[in-house]
Amino acid sequence: MARNKHPERTRARILDVAKRLFLTKGYDGTTMQDIVDSLGDLSKGAVYYHFKSKEAILDALGEEDQSRHDPTAINDTGLTGLDKLREAFRRSAADNEHMRLMNMAYPAMHDPKLLAANLKVWRTQVADMFETMIREGVADGSIDTAYPREAAELLALLTNYWLAPTFYPATADELHHRVEALAAVCTGLGVPILDEDLIETVSRGYAALI
Amino acid sequence: MARNKHPERTRARILDVAKRLFLTKGYDGTTMQDIVDSLGDLSKGAVYYHFKSKEAILDALGEEDQSRHDPTAINDTGLTGLDKLREAFRRSAADNEHMRLMNMAYPAMHDPKLLAANLKVWRTQVADMFETMIREGVADGSIDTAYPREAAELLALLTNYWLAPTFYPATADELHHRVEALAAVCTGLGVPILDEDLIETVSRGYAALI
Repeated sequence: MARNKHPERTRARILDVAKRLFLTKGYDGTTMQDIVDSLGDLSKGAVYYHFKSKEAILDALGEEDQSRHDPTAINDTGLTGLDKLREAFRRSAADNEHMRLMNMAYPAMHDPKLLAANLKVWRTQVADMFETMIREGVADGSIDTAYPREAAELLALLTNYWLAPTFYPATADELHHRVEALAAVCTGLGVPILDEDLIETVSRGYAALI
Repeated sequence: MARNKHPERTRARILDVAKRLFLTKGYDGTTMQDIVDSLGDLSKGAVYYHFKSKEAILDALGEEDQSRHDPTAINDTGLTGLDKLREAFRRSAADNEHMRLMNMAYPAMHDPKLLAANLKVWRTQVADMFETMIREGVADGSIDTAYPREAAELLALLTNYWLAPTFYPATADELHHRVEALAAVCTGLGVPILDEDLIETVSRGYAALI
């Protein structure tokens, strides 16, 4: 077997192949062996060297997916902080692949350890990311709030946990009503991200998780 | 050993003695043997028959404590639904014993299983209890909201999880600001529970958990 001179490239290939399989055969319908077979030129040991389990691959895809939807990465200088936040929500809720990956990742959170780990990420990294955007909006005048940190923590917690029908079961109509309530919460905090359009887009996005 | 004809009475006695020890020696400083010794007339086996661990006793004390602060149990017919909700918050935040018990229970939630179990109770029983009170307020005209269920779910989640410095570390000043943000959230949802007085009482209550 050839020596692997590009571990990062191998890792990315495994993720690509696994994502394609997860999205076509489903997460439960895909085995590590399927991933090895689809790659063709890597041993099972080599795949396990990069990811110790199928769950670890799903986790890594989740991280990759999250950074793809990081509003702080939206570099359109013509947009205000508030616009960037809205654009990030719009993109992730309208991104079918993203919602299908979330659909695979959520049931795994019935495992308390995985839920606790996710809650921690939402309290810290995700909240920090939202705070950066909100403070940008405060600086450019598009957001007027006394609660940048609190709003960031609540956005991170509520969009990832409370809106998820995995934890708070709901019909599509109930989810729509919940998103309207979240809009009222955001407005109450002075961070009115969810306008009429976005309420529709976000509701439809989460309804795909039912 | 005499037959136990009153298991409920024995259970209550164990809880009483354990609570007294937890509040004086601290949770970590109390052993099951201390509880057995303080009871005097029960074998260790008898205590374990009722509670399989010290943690199970703390859990039971938490449940007992929670039902003691159930606003649906406030039977003062002169109070509106909104007043009862406020009174329940006031009583539990001003109840030193309650806050000290919470102080003991929270660190245990670093255990993912215990956290997941608590999150489930907050999503269901605690949210149901708040919903009952909010709907009573809607019926008597003291609350005007389009979101009784959503506000109930958020009150349950945010007061138990987001306000807790165990999960979201904060100084006393930061906690005060967080409670003000929660007041804005409640107002945004049409359920303005946290008035100026209550913001002070609740902030002080949670600061005891730092």
